[in-house]
Amino acid sequence: MAVYTEVSDEELQDFAAQYDLGEVVSCKGIAEGVENTNYLLHTLPAGGSAPDSYILTLYEKRVSPEDLPFFLGLLEHLAAHGITCPTPIHGRDGATLRQLCGKPAVIVSFLSGMWPKHGTPQQCAALGTALAQMHVAGADFDMHRANDMSIDGWRKLLDASRARAHEIQSDLAKTLSAELDYLSASWPQDLPKGIIHADLFPDNVFFLGDQLSGLIDFYFACDDFLTYDLAICLNAWCFEADGSFNITKARSLLRHYAEVRPLNTAEFAALPLLARGSALRFLLTRLYDKLHHDESALVQPKDPLEFLVRLRFHQQVEGPGAYGLDEELAGA
Amino acid sequence: MAVYTEVSDEELQDFAAQYDLGEVVSCKGIAEGVENTNYLLHTLPAGGSAPDSYILTLYEKRVSPEDLPFFLGLLEHLAAHGITCPTPIHGRDGATLRQLCGKPAVIVSFLSGMWPKHGTPQQCAALGTALAQMHVAGADFDMHRANDMSIDGWRKLLDASRARAHEIQSDLAKTLSAELDYLSASWPQDLPKGIIHADLFPDNVFFLGDQLSGLIDFYFACDDFLTYDLAICLNAWCFEADGSFNITKARSLLRHYAEVRPLNTAEFAALPLLARGSALRFLLTRLYDKLHHDESALVQPKDPLEFLVRLRFHQQVEGPGAYGLDEELAGA
Repeated sequence: MAVYTEVSDEELQDFAAQYDLGEVVSCKGIAEGVENTNYLLHTLPAGGSAPDSYILTLYEKRVSPEDLPFFLGLLEHLAAHGITCPTPIHGRDGATLRQLCGKPAVIVSFLSGMWPKHGTPQQCAALGTALAQMHVAGADFDMHRANDMSIDGWRKLLDASRARAHEIQSDLAKTLSAELDYLSASWPQDLPKGIIHADLFPDNVFFLGDQLSGLIDFYFACDDFLTYDLAICLNAWCFEADGSFNITKARSLLRHYAEVRPLNTAEFAALPLLARGSALRFLLTRLYDKLHHDESALVQPKDPLEFLVRLRFHQQVEGPGAYGLDEELAGA
Repeated sequence: MAVYTEVSDEELQDFAAQYDLGEVVSCKGIAEGVENTNYLLHTLPAGGSAPDSYILTLYEKRVSPEDLPFFLGLLEHLAAHGITCPTPIHGRDGATLRQLCGKPAVIVSFLSGMWPKHGTPQQCAALGTALAQMHVAGADFDMHRANDMSIDGWRKLLDASRARAHEIQSDLAKTLSAELDYLSASWPQDLPKGIIHADLFPDNVFFLGDQLSGLIDFYFACDDFLTYDLAICLNAWCFEADGSFNITKARSLLRHYAEVRPLNTAEFAALPLLARGSALRFLLTRLYDKLHHDESALVQPKDPLEFLVRLRFHQQVEGPGAYGLDEELAGA
């Protein structure tokens, strides 16, 4: 929640003049998004009476500039295939990506909606549908990006945190090493792959009531198992604040996903393993962020142990049916 | 630049349901304003096609709840008299002030425009006109609030910072004591009084190009000498980043002010003294904030010494003509 780069009115006017958006009549820094600087722009098109809204994003150090063509290309591709996501706006020169205050910067369409602090089963249903539609829409996207937050990445994160993991919980390093060894040995090799969002937590999904109005923040998007994205959503949406698993939400999510993109038998069977992997992934990044937290930073680190609770749940499930979906409804 | 209070979508919907603003379709925390939590709301009125914008403010600890009826009443009064400032929106029950997440909260109208990082002489001219119009419009406002940031307040601030002022600059405490003694002995008693804004820095004035589109942030507004408000603007708008005084901007500001509300002879003569007092006021608050800065706070303290440079300028001027306005044009 921060504006890392202040844009002066002169710089903003010069930047906006490269687009056919009309006059910029307002520009407010948004206190959301921990990675980039975001401004909400209002512009008044020539002859228009009501302003239009856009988001101006300046990419800060955590997004690699060489990944931006992939991310922006993906947003354009998905939007063209009917997915409601931020759509990069083209300037008069045809380009979407340019420089502002020495940073890569882009203007994207504004999406109405608010992210839910407490997702409902109805919202999980809508999420399942939208996730599957996104996977289908991404099938013919022709750019690629490896998932640097998959097993190899987890080992690097664990190695960087191992020596101090006991500060968070005794035996944590041992628990995580054992889990990582298990997942490395049993991680699937041949599930259907495609473009995944890879970070579809509630703050990246907008709703108007129970109606899903947009998916945002594709800056972890990459090629990986499609079902891994679904496993991330299980972890991100289907546990309550007290750590308990909400099977009603999980069933809603999985069932509505499978109605659009049925799971094959291998995908269905792999759900518990993928859910363990995804719990470990967020546990490890949160652990790393907590141990390497800069006290002067504007963002408070999140609690890694929330994902240890989730990991333990997935470790003890007896099969994919524990998530509330039977094999037949999954399409498997 | 922070959101101190997170409002859940449920709390927001319940709150908004007390107004006739239509459906809330977006709510973004704004990374501006160091005192309060501000959200930019988009609402869609029943049957409307384009969303309307509003600001939702939650008052945090730095604004006293007992002052809120004065501030909100003032905004309503000024708006009713043609001043472009945020206008409190009345709920269905007629009230403007209510509670949200345990904090006093209000919805106000949204003002287009951006604040200038480098104010131009044209903008100073527009500011002078608007400031005088605000002073005239405030004349028949019937609520009152003492200026707790006048001479008595300065002494308290100095006393609270004296022992550590040398950390900022050696001899600073001595310099400030001498200045405060001088101002206490010579501060005017009988200049025209009225409602002043008391904090009209560039970040509180919106422009569309050189056209002033709004005055915001009235949370220091109080009863005091009207010309003191003008002296604050001299300090806030007419010095360059290198500390030099820009007489062109000052002349624009004063002249356009005086065209709407001419200064009397005593006011004109008091300008240098009021400018010294206003420089000391911001020097002291910045000094206090710097010495009492909580390292974990989200806001970086500003440099107090910028106002020592300004104070020294005002100490050495030979008369009000140094600000670029002659007595006749001032109306005096």
